[in-house]
Amino acid sequence: MQSEQPSAVQSIEWRDDHVRIIDQTFLPRRTVYSDIRDVGRMWEAIKTMRVRGAPAIGIAAAYGFYLGIRDLPESGYDSFKLEVDRLSEYMISARPTAINLKWAIDRITSSIHAYREKPIPDIKKHVLKIAITIHDEDRRVCRQIGINGQELIGKKANILTHCNTGSLATSQYGTALSVIYHAHEDGKKIHVWVDETRPLLQGARLTAWELLRVGVPMQLIVDSAAGMLMRTGKVDIVLVGTDRVAANGDVANKIGTYALAVLAKENNIPFYVAAPLSSIDMKIEDGDSIPIEERDPKEITTVGTFDIAPNKVKTYNPAFDVTPARYITGFITEKGIIKPDYKKNLAALFE
Amino acid sequence: MQSEQPSAVQSIEWRDDHVRIIDQTFLPRRTVYSDIRDVGRMWEAIKTMRVRGAPAIGIAAAYGFYLGIRDLPESGYDSFKLEVDRLSEYMISARPTAINLKWAIDRITSSIHAYREKPIPDIKKHVLKIAITIHDEDRRVCRQIGINGQELIGKKANILTHCNTGSLATSQYGTALSVIYHAHEDGKKIHVWVDETRPLLQGARLTAWELLRVGVPMQLIVDSAAGMLMRTGKVDIVLVGTDRVAANGDVANKIGTYALAVLAKENNIPFYVAAPLSSIDMKIEDGDSIPIEERDPKEITTVGTFDIAPNKVKTYNPAFDVTPARYITGFITEKGIIKPDYKKNLAALFE
Repeated sequence: MQSEQPSAVQSIEWRDDHVRIIDQTFLPRRTVYSDIRDVGRMWEAIKTMRVRGAPAIGIAAAYGFYLGIRDLPESGYDSFKLEVDRLSEYMISARPTAINLKWAIDRITSSIHAYREKPIPDIKKHVLKIAITIHDEDRRVCRQIGINGQELIGKKANILTHCNTGSLATSQYGTALSVIYHAHEDGKKIHVWVDETRPLLQGARLTAWELLRVGVPMQLIVDSAAGMLMRTGKVDIVLVGTDRVAANGDVANKIGTYALAVLAKENNIPFYVAAPLSSIDMKIEDGDSIPIEERDPKEITTVGTFDIAPNKVKTYNPAFDVTPARYITGFITEKGIIKPDYKKNLAALFE
Repeated sequence: MQSEQPSAVQSIEWRDDHVRIIDQTFLPRRTVYSDIRDVGRMWEAIKTMRVRGAPAIGIAAAYGFYLGIRDLPESGYDSFKLEVDRLSEYMISARPTAINLKWAIDRITSSIHAYREKPIPDIKKHVLKIAITIHDEDRRVCRQIGINGQELIGKKANILTHCNTGSLATSQYGTALSVIYHAHEDGKKIHVWVDETRPLLQGARLTAWELLRVGVPMQLIVDSAAGMLMRTGKVDIVLVGTDRVAANGDVANKIGTYALAVLAKENNIPFYVAAPLSSIDMKIEDGDSIPIEERDPKEITTVGTFDIAPNKVKTYNPAFDVTPARYITGFITEKGIIKPDYKKNLAALFE
């Protein structure tokens, strides 16, 4: 796949002195680009999911962090570092579950520490370089995940996926969707069941939009129809992404993932998680230690401009759930397919 | 519970010469009553789900059938019966899955046959009497289901429910919601997780509205959050209704029910189906023989007036799914709680 091809939506782009993102809250109705020139606007864009998807959040946060650092006074390293730490905390606070955000910020912070003897303007330039590197690496990683996942996809396959793990969620190709794009490019006869993914409908709005652009055969379903499709033999494999993998292989991902994993296991359908190494958090022992973001009730009670529930109804709106490792057939990473024992085999990826 | 109490919404009412329904497509935004005076309007009301819920469909169809029969010429029994059979097929075609519709129509048709020696005006009067009887019986049946279900509900319980099985779906009280209303009336400390129930959002629009009116503590969730609640110990029991029970105990119910049943089993949570005997179809051997209605793609792609998916996206929109009997802890009927062996114990209900 070349970048000229339609699958290569550029969700984030560095343009000399600012970042351009596709504002995903307007999709699929309108394709709106938004130019972001300061850290506050980037924090807001991540928080309100104008940019979303674990890898894309990492990239966006790296650029946003740079935008904040660029504007810092250059009077001395100590006060500079103090402000960097403040900015780092601020960026990380935008969304708590996806580890990629923290991973990108930590990587830049360590690197600043390593450069501490250099003049501050040089450190700043170096930070931009790392942000661009994170972005470039993600492109290669996503491509490799797509290639590595091919061994799991038959010549004819019904694939079920949840949320959006495509070009919009990453630098390019995506994670789980990268596997789908590569299978399609390879001429495999695939058909994708796209979960709409309530409450924010990333499946209906974003994944359907991406797959239609590229011409991958697909059908949109409500989330709760996935089970009946599995029971009646209409799903060969389930592919999802992840916001954070714990050291034992437990996975935090978009709400509804756990249910899919249980249903897949019940129906003997392989359930794979596409996970760049940047999504794996070896510091967290198990899934139940992953912080789960709870979001605005309005995400449930209002669709677009339309109120669907009575006024003042109470809601519970966790953005993610945790899928215990025992339901996961394997992880598709840029370093290959990882099978159990996850504790051992995930650790080996970082050796 | 008395009919003066707020739980007693009258979703269907016979008013001398016509039927008045609450048009459920406008809820919860507006409470619109609709007067139905001919069979065509009733067919449309059932088809478009202005009136919905398996028992309510049975009652509405009975009245609708009467409205059609009332207008038939009275020249002779044979031609009258021919028209009755035509009307019967027409009414049954409105919605294929809920057996209550066919059950009500068949009951009236048999009774017409039994009255075949009487003058046609008398037969017509008799049909109205049966429709009113079906309506009255449902009220008693729902109340009894609520009372019978009490042994399953602890003094403090988190109950999860799907779709709408309340006063709007029946003559009064409901089926699964009747158990909830009675538990609340009895002073039990219950809390209800209400699945929003995509695509038509009967949970968000109707169940939330009913429970808020009566003051039952509740929280609205997206359908795919039910699994994580079960895994994290926040659900004590799952209560759902049904559109048709096969002779072996397999259940057709609103799409998403199967997933809930699998998740409940996986987490050792009791899963009960509230089912009036009129929902049990002893003529159908198993769930996979139940016809599953597929509905308009627009139900998925449009919420209210708001388009949520790209134009021309393909969808798959089954209104129901089948839950195999092995996932069902028991049935709550007006004749008590039924446990496995279902084939034997369901048959015994009709002896």
